[in-house]
Amino acid sequence: MIDSADIEFAHRLAETAAKVSLSYFRTAVQVDDKDDASPVTIADRTAEKVMRELIAKERPGDGILGEEFGRERTDARRVWVLDPIDGTKAFISGNPLFGTLIGLAIDGKPALGVIDCPALGERWIGAKGQATRFTDAKGTREVKTRACPELSLASLYSAVPVSNDTNFPAFDRLRQRVKRPLPVCDCYAYGLLARGGVDLVVEAGLGIYDFTALVPVVEGAGGTIHDWQGKALTTDSPGYVIAAGDARMAAAAVAALRA
Amino acid sequence: MIDSADIEFAHRLAETAAKVSLSYFRTAVQVDDKDDASPVTIADRTAEKVMRELIAKERPGDGILGEEFGRERTDARRVWVLDPIDGTKAFISGNPLFGTLIGLAIDGKPALGVIDCPALGERWIGAKGQATRFTDAKGTREVKTRACPELSLASLYSAVPVSNDTNFPAFDRLRQRVKRPLPVCDCYAYGLLARGGVDLVVEAGLGIYDFTALVPVVEGAGGTIHDWQGKALTTDSPGYVIAAGDARMAAAAVAALRA
Repeated sequence: MIDSADIEFAHRLAETAAKVSLSYFRTAVQVDDKDDASPVTIADRTAEKVMRELIAKERPGDGILGEEFGRERTDARRVWVLDPIDGTKAFISGNPLFGTLIGLAIDGKPALGVIDCPALGERWIGAKGQATRFTDAKGTREVKTRACPELSLASLYSAVPVSNDTNFPAFDRLRQRVKRPLPVCDCYAYGLLARGGVDLVVEAGLGIYDFTALVPVVEGAGGTIHDWQGKALTTDSPGYVIAAGDARMAAAAVAALRA
Repeated sequence: MIDSADIEFAHRLAETAAKVSLSYFRTAVQVDDKDDASPVTIADRTAEKVMRELIAKERPGDGILGEEFGRERTDARRVWVLDPIDGTKAFISGNPLFGTLIGLAIDGKPALGVIDCPALGERWIGAKGQATRFTDAKGTREVKTRACPELSLASLYSAVPVSNDTNFPAFDRLRQRVKRPLPVCDCYAYGLLARGGVDLVVEAGLGIYDFTALVPVVEGAGGTIHDWQGKALTTDSPGYVIAAGDARMAAAAVAALRA
């Protein structure tokens, strides 16, 4: 389903976006507020544009769904799902924990995913049925999630909403039950999970472009990723995401968020 | 008060600790829980040990106050205040946003500070009466905080405790009043503030070794740093810290945390 040409192309998309995002990182860029008050910059827009151009040129039949410029041919079987800068708030602070997310959904199901953190020189790539591979200055190797038998021993990276947020009680309950509650750092937290550094990542309100790329990366590393009910994530899912290194932790998180 | 020999020595302390911490970073290290349930590893202990040895050898008259091995000659006028790995939770997750904090207090007042983030190759150094300098792969330069006139426009990096924490209401109130509430990333947040990437950093429950080094870095970049009442931080302060790029934001945070 995913062949080496797809993987090579996904790497090239990441490199194309990285050149743009790094050229703007830690420079004075204007920050605009989107309708949901989230920030966006010329770096987000340009990084998405160059990826769209590459897809249009080399994969003209494929659809595109991007955070900044919306849908194009999304009735195609194969749809590239792009978040040019996941972690724009980090990006505009000068914090290197932002990433470019590149997903390929086939028939609505995540089949290929890249988490690229260009300011760190770290990249994860996962594909359905294949082991997730991680690249940094030391080279490329397969990575694996780690086992964790119970919530009271788990390290959790999660969203930490303010108290008037609808999802506050669920997050607060879960954070109180784990050993180490840590604040999520956008897509980088899923990379840490795929590398076996943390047991659980839980978020709410994500866009399709935020989670599509994460699914093959987490699953290919031996982890579990699904929504807050335990259902598979598709391009139609609302953005309630649980990722766990150990399937027992995913089940425990479903219960804790609901209870 | 602080001369170039002190600054050169502080750089050497940072390099000595960095060699140790990087040698353990992303390797399988045993994680022990301290009395306060915070994690500690052989990396924390060894990095502090090598700094203590260097101080004992080259500055035998100076005192030392370190997170892992406590106090030594702290009745001396000059006391080195060391946190070998600030952000041990990040460190054990494989997250590069941890740092070594090296402070020098003279008569109990922070006079020199280093924030060193070896996994990122980034270092800040500040000294009383001198401009804060930042070094990364691009070289060394002076850095400055940025102006921000009101809380409703501010980006805040703060602690995000669970709801049964004593300080939860104060943090929650402040987070609801700013434009962008973000979760603190240990010492790195103060580095971002000193570089003008964020407006406010607020934490509670810090140790002396967590904040001594931060004071000269923030002040030397033009920022304000004090406790939640607006009082100067000394080696006797409880660890309630407000750092602001703009003095108006520091005052607004004092009011919002109290109100």
